Amino acid sequence: MSDCLFCKIAAGEIPCTEVFSNEKFIAFRDIAPQAPTHILVIPRSHIAGLSDFTDADQVLAGELMTIAVKIAAKEGLVPTGYRFVINNGVDGGQTVSHLHLHILGGRALAWPPG
Amino acid sequence: MSDCLFCKIAAGEIPCTEVFSNEKFIAFRDIAPQAPTHILVIPRSHIAGLSDFTDADQVLAGELMTIAVKIAAKEGLVPTGYRFVINNGVDGGQTVSHLHLHILGGRALAWPPG
Repeated sequence: MSDCLFCKIAAGEIPCTEVFSNEKFIAFRDIAPQAPTHILVIPRSHIAGLSDFTDADQVLAGELMTIAVKIAAKEGLVPTGYRFVINNGVDGGQTVSHLHLHILGGRALAWPPG
Repeated sequence: MSDCLFCKIAAGEIPCTEVFSNEKFIAFRDIAPQAPTHILVIPRSHIAGLSDFTDADQVLAGELMTIAVKIAAKEGLVPTGYRFVINNGVDGGQTVSHLHLHILGGRALAWPPG
């Protein structure tokens, strides 16, 4: 989508601090980090959000999760722990309408989660 | 695992307010809800947490996500929005060592997410 911020990042049109990239996904540091480690993992293909998922996206969803797990490990977060967050829609606090998984770590994350 | 709370819930040994069940997953309402809708989705098989995921669990991860998306829709959360949260380890605030995905909705969820 030509007007989507994350599509532009995936296309290299807007710079990011990349931590992972393959043919289907890219991960980069959040520009407004909420924890010492705060990374976003996104599919390169434009999916607006969780509620746009279909059964055809199940493989993509599994890859998204396992890639995020590997990034968390590579960032050294396994011994201390981390949190995955995916926002959908207004109540979820989703600010960019392109599916993204937040990895947060490096501090004790409070409860409730927002 | 005989001493795991969520394995006991999955086995029907401890009651829960079930909202979904199939051969691989069960979903139930959190006993300490942090939002008007607060549901946990767990695999019936014992996986301690995200950092125990292997590539062999990728299909399971995809199913977990898509089932949670369907539950959120069934709960009527799509128009207003919702948040998915998965905690791993101490900093993540994981309190039960059996993988579980939180679905939260029914109120505006704040930022940061904990």
